[in-house]
Amino acid sequence: MAKIPRSKFYDQSSNDYTAEMAATRREFVKDKTGAEMNHVGTFSIKPDTLPGNIEHFTGVAQVPIGLAGPLVIKGVDAQGEFYVPMATTEGTLVASYNRGMRLTAESGGVKTTVIDDAMQRAPVFVFEDARAALAFGKWVTDNFELIKAKAEETTSVGKLRDIEQYAVSKMRWLRFNFTCGDAAGQNMVSKATRHACQWMQAQHIAGLEHFALSGNLDTDKKHSFVNSLHTRGKRVVAETTIPADLMKSLMHCSPDALFKQRQLSNMGAFVAGSVSNGAHFANGITALFIACGQDVANVAESSAGYTYSEITPNGDYYFSITIPSLVVASYGGGTGLATQRECLETLGCYGNGRVNKLAEIIAATVLCGELSLGAAVVADEWVSSHDEYGRNRP
Amino acid sequence: MAKIPRSKFYDQSSNDYTAEMAATRREFVKDKTGAEMNHVGTFSIKPDTLPGNIEHFTGVAQVPIGLAGPLVIKGVDAQGEFYVPMATTEGTLVASYNRGMRLTAESGGVKTTVIDDAMQRAPVFVFEDARAALAFGKWVTDNFELIKAKAEETTSVGKLRDIEQYAVSKMRWLRFNFTCGDAAGQNMVSKATRHACQWMQAQHIAGLEHFALSGNLDTDKKHSFVNSLHTRGKRVVAETTIPADLMKSLMHCSPDALFKQRQLSNMGAFVAGSVSNGAHFANGITALFIACGQDVANVAESSAGYTYSEITPNGDYYFSITIPSLVVASYGGGTGLATQRECLETLGCYGNGRVNKLAEIIAATVLCGELSLGAAVVADEWVSSHDEYGRNRP
Amino acid sequence: MAKIPRSKFYDQSSNDYTAEMAATRREFVKDKTGAEMNHVGTFSIKPDTLPGNIEHFTGVAQVPIGLAGPLVIKGVDAQGEFYVPMATTEGTLVASYNRGMRLTAESGGVKTTVIDDAMQRAPVFVFEDARAALAFGKWVTDNFELIKAKAEETTSVGKLRDIEQYAVSKMRWLRFNFTCGDAAGQNMVSKATRHACQWMQAQHIAGLEHFALSGNLDTDKKHSFVNSLHTRGKRVVAETTIPADLMKSLMHCSPDALFKQRQLSNMGAFVAGSVSNGAHFANGITALFIACGQDVANVAESSAGYTYSEITPNGDYYFSITIPSLVVASYGGGTGLATQRECLETLGCYGNGRVNKLAEIIAATVLCGELSLGAAVVADEWVSSHDEYGRNRP
Amino acid sequence: MAKIPRSKFYDQSSNDYTAEMAATRREFVKDKTGAEMNHVGTFSIKPDTLPGNIEHFTGVAQVPIGLAGPLVIKGVDAQGEFYVPMATTEGTLVASYNRGMRLTAESGGVKTTVIDDAMQRAPVFVFEDARAALAFGKWVTDNFELIKAKAEETTSVGKLRDIEQYAVSKMRWLRFNFTCGDAAGQNMVSKATRHACQWMQAQHIAGLEHFALSGNLDTDKKHSFVNSLHTRGKRVVAETTIPADLMKSLMHCSPDALFKQRQLSNMGAFVAGSVSNGAHFANGITALFIACGQDVANVAESSAGYTYSEITPNGDYYFSITIPSLVVASYGGGTGLATQRECLETLGCYGNGRVNKLAEIIAATVLCGELSLGAAVVADEWVSSHDEYGRNRP
Repeated sequence: MAKIPRSKFYDQSSNDYTAEMAATRREFVKDKTGAEMNHVGTFSIKPDTLPGNIEHFTGVAQVPIGLAGPLVIKGVDAQGEFYVPMATTEGTLVASYNRGMRLTAESGGVKTTVIDDAMQRAPVFVFEDARAALAFGKWVTDNFELIKAKAEETTSVGKLRDIEQYAVSKMRWLRFNFTCGDAAGQNMVSKATRHACQWMQAQHIAGLEHFALSGNLDTDKKHSFVNSLHTRGKRVVAETTIPADLMKSLMHCSPDALFKQRQLSNMGAFVAGSVSNGAHFANGITALFIACGQDVANVAESSAGYTYSEITPNGDYYFSITIPSLVVASYGGGTGLATQRECLETLGCYGNGRVNKLAEIIAATVLCGELSLGAAVVADEWVSSHDEYGRNRP
Repeated sequence: MAKIPRSKFYDQSSNDYTAEMAATRREFVKDKTGAEMNHVGTFSIKPDTLPGNIEHFTGVAQVPIGLAGPLVIKGVDAQGEFYVPMATTEGTLVASYNRGMRLTAESGGVKTTVIDDAMQRAPVFVFEDARAALAFGKWVTDNFELIKAKAEETTSVGKLRDIEQYAVSKMRWLRFNFTCGDAAGQNMVSKATRHACQWMQAQHIAGLEHFALSGNLDTDKKHSFVNSLHTRGKRVVAETTIPADLMKSLMHCSPDALFKQRQLSNMGAFVAGSVSNGAHFANGITALFIACGQDVANVAESSAGYTYSEITPNGDYYFSITIPSLVVASYGGGTGLATQRECLETLGCYGNGRVNKLAEIIAATVLCGELSLGAAVVADEWVSSHDEYGRNRP
Repeated sequence: MAKIPRSKFYDQSSNDYTAEMAATRREFVKDKTGAEMNHVGTFSIKPDTLPGNIEHFTGVAQVPIGLAGPLVIKGVDAQGEFYVPMATTEGTLVASYNRGMRLTAESGGVKTTVIDDAMQRAPVFVFEDARAALAFGKWVTDNFELIKAKAEETTSVGKLRDIEQYAVSKMRWLRFNFTCGDAAGQNMVSKATRHACQWMQAQHIAGLEHFALSGNLDTDKKHSFVNSLHTRGKRVVAETTIPADLMKSLMHCSPDALFKQRQLSNMGAFVAGSVSNGAHFANGITALFIACGQDVANVAESSAGYTYSEITPNGDYYFSITIPSLVVASYGGGTGLATQRECLETLGCYGNGRVNKLAEIIAATVLCGELSLGAAVVADEWVSSHDEYGRNRP
Repeated sequence: MAKIPRSKFYDQSSNDYTAEMAATRREFVKDKTGAEMNHVGTFSIKPDTLPGNIEHFTGVAQVPIGLAGPLVIKGVDAQGEFYVPMATTEGTLVASYNRGMRLTAESGGVKTTVIDDAMQRAPVFVFEDARAALAFGKWVTDNFELIKAKAEETTSVGKLRDIEQYAVSKMRWLRFNFTCGDAAGQNMVSKATRHACQWMQAQHIAGLEHFALSGNLDTDKKHSFVNSLHTRGKRVVAETTIPADLMKSLMHCSPDALFKQRQLSNMGAFVAGSVSNGAHFANGITALFIACGQDVANVAESSAGYTYSEITPNGDYYFSITIPSLVVASYGGGTGLATQRECLETLGCYGNGRVNKLAEIIAATVLCGELSLGAAVVADEWVSSHDEYGRNRP
């Protein structure tokens, strides 16, 4: 087996995507560290399918998957019963979501709706003064159709929806909002925005001093207020109404007690400066993201959200969650990898025309997890359930 | 092979952790959905090691791992060269971090320091009026040692460091800060805090109307200002100084150009209301979290952070990143699973006494990724590098 | 002199706007509290000019005014030299702004630009589910011209510019953005929005459950990210470039030292979760607001802002401030009161067509105050100057 | 009458505090601008009392005062009936607060409590690396008593309560928290902190590179999350319970309707990223600040706050407001000026030992205004009441 010289680890030419090369890397690291990577080297995916997904391929992480469900959804795109693959190493998680799925199924299911859709890149233009930046802003508004045509030259899928403008000092950030079909679209929008901006810069904009393709107003791989206000990825709502009797029999607490807890949780989140007044959106999102080949780093922005509940006139519990920035894809990225594709297919969410369905399933899952954890806190079953299921997790 | 009745999916008694039961679940789902889970069913981990990590075990997600490095660290606990396993499905990611690792290695390495350590649970006490809440607050301060003793009865590892108090209306949130050894500690602190609070409630606190073990001021699985201000998990800093010539030759941009971009990125993040003025902390953190058996949902809070840079008197580039809430463990949770443990062992980070070392490696990795992406944006190599490596990701 | 029965203090019918009635109120309070209001009773304004500005008129607060200037402005609407009336009780304030005005005057003046203009009311519509809310959102977009026509029936001045939509759960907030001529416009937009919404509700919107004219997404009399992102009142930028030599001779510090301090202040503001990375915008704004009859409570939102600076290629100091939500009027409200009108006239800002000029003067003033305080901190003259001028203020 | 050369406006030596000099300034401005300042020149305050409160004294702003009340308070320091002087130019404001005062008086009054007290200065220390900053942090903790002794050398009133530490990169911000007796204390704490820091710097701290007396983590004259979490000035709560019948008869809406509106307002504020989930704290605070000689620019931070309400078991409306950062004084600053002192005396709040009483009165006033405006929105009387009272305000 060939040796890797140390320099090759910095050298992309060693990037040859074969099982042998992966083994060589594991061997190299064993030489350096003494640690074996036998399990890492056990996989069924084909290395030659991996270009575009990984560099320096060495093996795999095996992340256990538990199935929860049936999750009953009455969505726009997701309709029926779903068995949800959740990849996690945290005990209690699957059990807890499953408990919420049972509750909502017995209540008639979860209603889901994708209410907005946008992926961004936000270049910043710096001018000699604020007045030039203002004039540029007007020019952008006036020339939107031309800019849109340019941007869309680089993609057959992405559509430039609109350009938000944010102005401070002599800078103007343009937040290009695209729809990206079934892809998450971060690369698509970078390329399209760059192409449009190159054309814009060639128009001899008066007073332009500097340009950067990103100026942190996007904001990718991190939460921001802008994202929660204006959507990054899909904006999805999941809703359900739980009969009071069912809540008491299955969850051991009343709608009134849950609603009182919600008041405290709302205030706590507001005081803390939290990005969510919910409990743990991230748990369900992350488990589905890993299983389904999503870009898991987007948990950073996808974990933000809103919870809203009401006691209905007859005492039942209306409950909803809103995810304002769910970055999700049914095509491209990691969706085509072997296990990931199987998980998507289990949900009927692999390939074109399925991305909203996937977004709805994730939102419904999140809702179930919120109900389950919320009720566990109120019924004082939170710690005991982790004692039962989560014994590996101190 | 046994059939699973539908109800069993809601029934934890079916939770028997055998390969056969996992196969039965895959079969059940195939019957329901028509989708096969053959790759999901290919794994080398032993199902009987999984209680405490997953329920309804069905198989695994195979997430490709690429190795980046050598990452040269001059930390307090992490010292020397490291080969970093990164589990991701996003092309360009490993290559980009690797590029940053080469840059810092040739500059003499990354200096890392864990500067704070705390894991929280924040119960809320509701009183008949603000005056009773105030009196309670004083009582808590006066009785801290007794509360600490009670809390620590449930754990041999967790130590109650202090209790922050937050007061609004007639409520008082107590933010219990624990150190948790090498565990992440969320369950440990829930249990200890609950135990202490039960004792507190038995002291006949005047005017107490209501108690909840959590009131969203913790904040778990979601970012908050409180977390960034006061640390959740480890607070880690990574620093380096890149010679100007090296920056130009390897990254194709000057320290001055990077510094100018930093001014725009700082302003953009501030305007956006972002949780980070950095670029993509989440990418490196997530890839390491998946590979190393961390609770990946904690990317929600771990992705926040601060970037700070200076031009040194001789024109070099001082660069640092600070992660205020890195939730990380070298023991418990998913750290003991087969592939995850191998990855930790490759880093010398499995088991007791290694958690700060792991935190430092993650911080050093994040720093390298920030330098690489930052330079790519400035040198206009961002889109072209994704064209080269990320072809699967639209 | 007539006695006031206690109940009359709750009774608006006692609202008769005469000097005698004001004296009666002072007498009544003296009876109740023993405290005399002789100075409060000394005023030159005519009580019969006060309906619409105050109820239960009793006298005046005499707030000392100091003049600062000449402030040299090269704005769009404000051009030339201005003597700025600042009403405050805080020693050092006028002296400090004056110092900054001298600096900018000797540097060639301050460039000012109003870059956006909008006043809001944001009603919330609650539906039976998110899907109905979504359909309503589309209906609003499609019927914008009709809604605009309705809204503008109640005002000859206000123009409905656009309607932003914010969606969570089954709610939809509509942020109506108006331009309001020379008025601040809060009442104008409330009335117009209410009128439009009454018409909208009469259109039998499917699934509408509830309506409220405000749902805290406006946000009036309090800062919010939405306001800083999307402007409330005027968005104004002031810019200047200070020669390095002048900075050193007048302010006793170098551009480099100021720029270094800016890096720390930017980071501090970001860490603190501050609404401004500036120093004390509120001081200048408040002093001008009191003197010029503005609604001083709008300091709440007007005090937010952005500071951005650069070292120019030849070592000078480019400095700018941006006020994103300056709520200001040259007409209506308190602008017509005796002393307030005189102050506005001194600035050439009373009456129609003057509001942008006033906004520019305020922005230029704020910039001067930022430079002065910033330099005082850097040159360590901050505490000593307050010892000299602020002796009354512990 | 003496002429002022233009240069004198920048020259503090012209600062002679006589009626003649004030007249000279008015005359000078008339020459320059053509505008007369006759009303500005009408005042009863004595110029020779003004050093320390204003520079370049020229006259006064006459701000109309309306009296609201009786406000019934059952506070810790404020007890009984109060007639509240409110200085404003905004019609409806006094009437609306008065309406709320009647409601709370008939409900038995407002319960008020000051629950925290701290004034800050937050210097920043920059080190050669994060490790040196960490060591310094420990040194500060270990030497708190020495630092405290040094700080308190400059003041007989201010007491250093504690020092919070905030760490990013190689910086450490120390947030010095003082109690300041009856003064607001901003200058007191600047001076004391500077003195302590000079001593600290003389202790040869290892690796210290740079020091600045403020680094925007204070945060003065601007809102921040840190202030709302940890108090700036007084943290005050006001509470009341309004019987359902009284709410209906006086405010024309039910507790249930108000509570529903609160849910929407809470969500709106959270979505907007607002500093308050209340309606208009700033209106009452500003009107009292102007009347009572407070530093009105502190409305910037004092306007933030929390509203919390409950429906009691018998259907009444528990309502509370919390002001986390009320910057207030009964001594020093503008409190001794003629009209301002009269207003404070009317409230029994002038001089030593009265500052908490004043804080409680302000909080009770704010609560009344929130109830009044909240009910007006719900009962759809908001626009019509402004039509009636606010006719001058477009």
